[in-house]
Amino acid sequence: MHADTFIHDMAIIMLVAGLITIIFNKLKQPVVLGYLLAGVIIGPHTPPFELIHDKQIIMVLAELGVIFLMFSLGLEFSLKKLAKVGPRAFITAVCETSLMVTIGYNLGHWFGWQEMDCIFLGAMMAISSTTIIVKALGELGMKQQKFAQLIFGVLIVEDILAIGIIALLSGLATSGAVNSHEILSTVGKLSLFIIVSLILGLLTIPRLLAYISKFNSHEMMLISVLGLCFGFCLLVLALDYSVALGAFMMGAIVAEARPLALIEKLIEPIRDMFCAIFFVTIGMMLNPEVMLQYLTPILLISLALMIGKIIGATTGSFISGQNGKTSLRVGMGLAQIGEFSFIIAGLGSTLKVTSNFLYPIAITVSAITTLLTPYLIKAADPLSKIISSHTPKVIKNPFKIYTVWLRDLHPTGDSAMLVKIIAKIVLQVIVNCALVIAVFLAGVFIATNFDQKIINDAEGTLLNEQIHRSIICGLAIFISLPFIIAAYRKLKALAMMLSEMWISNQFGGKHTYKLRRIIFESLPIIVITLIMSFIFSISKHILPDPPVLLMIVTSEIILALILWKPMVKLQSWLQIELFTVMETNHEHQ
Amino acid sequence: MHADTFIHDMAIIMLVAGLITIIFNKLKQPVVLGYLLAGVIIGPHTPPFELIHDKQIIMVLAELGVIFLMFSLGLEFSLKKLAKVGPRAFITAVCETSLMVTIGYNLGHWFGWQEMDCIFLGAMMAISSTTIIVKALGELGMKQQKFAQLIFGVLIVEDILAIGIIALLSGLATSGAVNSHEILSTVGKLSLFIIVSLILGLLTIPRLLAYISKFNSHEMMLISVLGLCFGFCLLVLALDYSVALGAFMMGAIVAEARPLALIEKLIEPIRDMFCAIFFVTIGMMLNPEVMLQYLTPILLISLALMIGKIIGATTGSFISGQNGKTSLRVGMGLAQIGEFSFIIAGLGSTLKVTSNFLYPIAITVSAITTLLTPYLIKAADPLSKIISSHTPKVIKNPFKIYTVWLRDLHPTGDSAMLVKIIAKIVLQVIVNCALVIAVFLAGVFIATNFDQKIINDAEGTLLNEQIHRSIICGLAIFISLPFIIAAYRKLKALAMMLSEMWISNQFGGKHTYKLRRIIFESLPIIVITLIMSFIFSISKHILPDPPVLLMIVTSEIILALILWKPMVKLQSWLQIELFTVMETNHEHQ
Repeated sequence: MHADTFIHDMAIIMLVAGLITIIFNKLKQPVVLGYLLAGVIIGPHTPPFELIHDKQIIMVLAELGVIFLMFSLGLEFSLKKLAKVGPRAFITAVCETSLMVTIGYNLGHWFGWQEMDCIFLGAMMAISSTTIIVKALGELGMKQQKFAQLIFGVLIVEDILAIGIIALLSGLATSGAVNSHEILSTVGKLSLFIIVSLILGLLTIPRLLAYISKFNSHEMMLISVLGLCFGFCLLVLALDYSVALGAFMMGAIVAEARPLALIEKLIEPIRDMFCAIFFVTIGMMLNPEVMLQYLTPILLISLALMIGKIIGATTGSFISGQNGKTSLRVGMGLAQIGEFSFIIAGLGSTLKVTSNFLYPIAITVSAITTLLTPYLIKAADPLSKIISSHTPKVIKNPFKIYTVWLRDLHPTGDSAMLVKIIAKIVLQVIVNCALVIAVFLAGVFIATNFDQKIINDAEGTLLNEQIHRSIICGLAIFISLPFIIAAYRKLKALAMMLSEMWISNQFGGKHTYKLRRIIFESLPIIVITLIMSFIFSISKHILPDPPVLLMIVTSEIILALILWKPMVKLQSWLQIELFTVMETNHEHQ
Repeated sequence: MHADTFIHDMAIIMLVAGLITIIFNKLKQPVVLGYLLAGVIIGPHTPPFELIHDKQIIMVLAELGVIFLMFSLGLEFSLKKLAKVGPRAFITAVCETSLMVTIGYNLGHWFGWQEMDCIFLGAMMAISSTTIIVKALGELGMKQQKFAQLIFGVLIVEDILAIGIIALLSGLATSGAVNSHEILSTVGKLSLFIIVSLILGLLTIPRLLAYISKFNSHEMMLISVLGLCFGFCLLVLALDYSVALGAFMMGAIVAEARPLALIEKLIEPIRDMFCAIFFVTIGMMLNPEVMLQYLTPILLISLALMIGKIIGATTGSFISGQNGKTSLRVGMGLAQIGEFSFIIAGLGSTLKVTSNFLYPIAITVSAITTLLTPYLIKAADPLSKIISSHTPKVIKNPFKIYTVWLRDLHPTGDSAMLVKIIAKIVLQVIVNCALVIAVFLAGVFIATNFDQKIINDAEGTLLNEQIHRSIICGLAIFISLPFIIAAYRKLKALAMMLSEMWISNQFGGKHTYKLRRIIFESLPIIVITLIMSFIFSISKHILPDPPVLLMIVTSEIILALILWKPMVKLQSWLQIELFTVMETNHEHQ
């Protein structure tokens, strides 16, 4: 019987995983390593014999492991936290990951590997393992220290970068080519998708979950959350992105809901179960022969990984303004790879663009670096003392001066306030423009996918198509109106501030007000026109002929002027909703 | 991609289940019904189109649903609770299930169905649904009432009966024949397996889980418990029992562990998730056409089910000593079928012994009766008032007299104490004998499965085989010694009590003491000899020739006399351990 085979396989995996978790907890080693080892033991490549009969179903369950892992990471990810550690973590993460991608890519070429293998190696080496670091710091009792908070910040930024990398690699693997236009277009579409989903998700889902929590039923909450997570994965799959992205994003959205603590508690056991299956399955794919065959690359990659990560993250952290000691701690904490590398390696092998040896290499390197993580963290302080006492003052002083200079550079008082306000306005303009773009892209999508049929059925003449396009374009503009108006108003506010800064009373004399007025009346209109031209240019498919378009635009402008007030109200209500969701404090664990 | 298909299917199921759980909670209907409906909608038999692509994997996941469902039921099952509600619940359950099996079996024949279909119909109708009743009573706020406690007791007994029925049906379906010897042997082996596993499990597993709980890691606890559950399922599968039995028993064993509350919390979300999949999958198998085709049998079965269950359970409850009103409430609460019926129907279709229409019938009948459960519970009190006011006193009085008579019959004071003590001793003798039988059966198992090879390799002469048998038989007796000694001592205590009761001073005169001594010295030896003869008779395979056997037995008796004290100590230590585990109070929810 089929089901019995499966139960047999499941039983073997859970039994071995259960034994392993006890042994590895007793030995105080990371359980993830144990799972990998368990996978090697029950896998097909090692004696005594193959214990798993139906590998395919188990692989499919491992896929669920990825979803729950990413969803949990998303739950722990928080837009608020990101804003807090923001710039500093961003500098460190970008510094480190770009260094690692470069190292990995060149190392691959040095080994004489194919182009795609090199790219995937670079990507695999870029992202540190949240799972491993959180556990290691927890076990060392260092979770609350300052450098740990910084590491968590870096990990959050790395998560986002990883999501981007995964999406990029998928695109790259399917198109097969590496050109900058492709990459730009992929990144652009991806960012747009993320922004729009986040906004729509944050407006609806926390509200829905708050409603569900009123029923006081754990089952209902769990099944609804799972429905949301998998439902979003479905959408993401339809758009050809990876489920990892979908699960992570839905996690991040659900993280802003009020019953977050309950949801985390409910998801935790499911995640733990499927993660165990996921890591065991990864271990099953490790062929010790391949591992021995590629021992030299594995050791070199591990070494390069640790040195590269430590140098990259320490430098990045130092540039972002930390002192040497903290920077070194951050660097040594991040020196390993884990779940994301497995996902990236898995992506390569499912898309069949990488060589078979890449997966075992990723696993072995992860195992080696994971094993060393706690020791590296513990070695950070002694090492920083040694470096500090052996570095001559001539070298030390410039570094100190940099740190102090950076601290003084930080804007304070009025100017800091001004920078903040301008940044906020720019952000709001970008968000509103993104929504407008999304509306138009949706229009293009509908026009190309669904309407083609109708047009074909109607034996569409040119005139017919003109009407059709006019309707879609008119609707798109109408739906975008609140956002366009909002962007216009924000730009006007910005223009006012800028005009006051640029045109001082001394410069303008008695014309001061007039000059300022010219700026703050014309600037927003110019910018909006530019933005709309850009949007029109990317959505040529649904635009009618220019004269018709002009008519539509004119009538919509008139409509906008009439409906100005209700639309402003609608938009600001949406905006308030969004910020309320994000600024509410949740009962986080 | 294979994994994508699966994620797609999973997403559809979870999305629909999520929607359904919200809608059905809002409508205050049982969510299980919603899941079934969701299954029908996304299933292959209904328009718009088939939404699930890889049914096989989903079916396999549903199998996991059965395991987690049964494991949870096991967790809620408690040997202590069973002892408390014991006899009364037992009478009600046996009364009701035997009536239902009879009704179902005969109804099937009346429809002109095949023998196996009739048997499975009877089994399907026998067991009420714990899931549905617990939820319905919870929603009506009646969980704490006296009749609800009685219903829970009946459900516990029914769970055990169901486990027996499932094991019996599996045996019956594979052997194909219904003969009483087969049934007796199946039931005997099953009871033996259950008793031995429970004893060994209770001695080791709560201890292990208490040790694990010291690590204070949710992940470790969960994975260990899952390992235990699936590991035991593996053993059960190897012995050709159903996984439902294995999961339930492991649940019952884990329920006696100290960290029960934590384990329940960790298992709950996993159970909820897989149960949703399980019920949706069951819905998917419902073909509305078949349902319409068999509408008459479905309606008749539903009607027979409700009437039969109400009459059976009410009568049983009344016989066991409840008043009319409580009995009717118990009866009306139990009038539905659920998860066990699906498992039994599923068993029939996997073993390919039942017709295809049985599954949809089980689902539809369950849906109808589930839907009516809350109304039946609410209707119990008005109905009992109507019956009470319309029944003439001539009929009512005998019933009242019965209730009063039964209450008076209950032993009180000294005699009640005596009955309790005797029952306890008999139980201990049975448990010890079961262990001895288990040791011998293990010997038979080893001799037939593993040693055949060795004997064949050694070109075994008769002498060789004699030595072989002597070793196994000698070892089996040696391992059993502590239990035989314990049984002997308990029997002696019993014989002492009985001899004092039977031979009063008036009857024995001055020989009183001698007569009593003859009884309490000879009785235990006679009983032990009888038991051992029985055991030897079922394990002929491993017995050497009579003279050798006699030698072995004699030497072991001498050994027993020498090692008497340490063996008594060992056995009583084991017994104390067992009872400590079962009598400790856990932090149950």
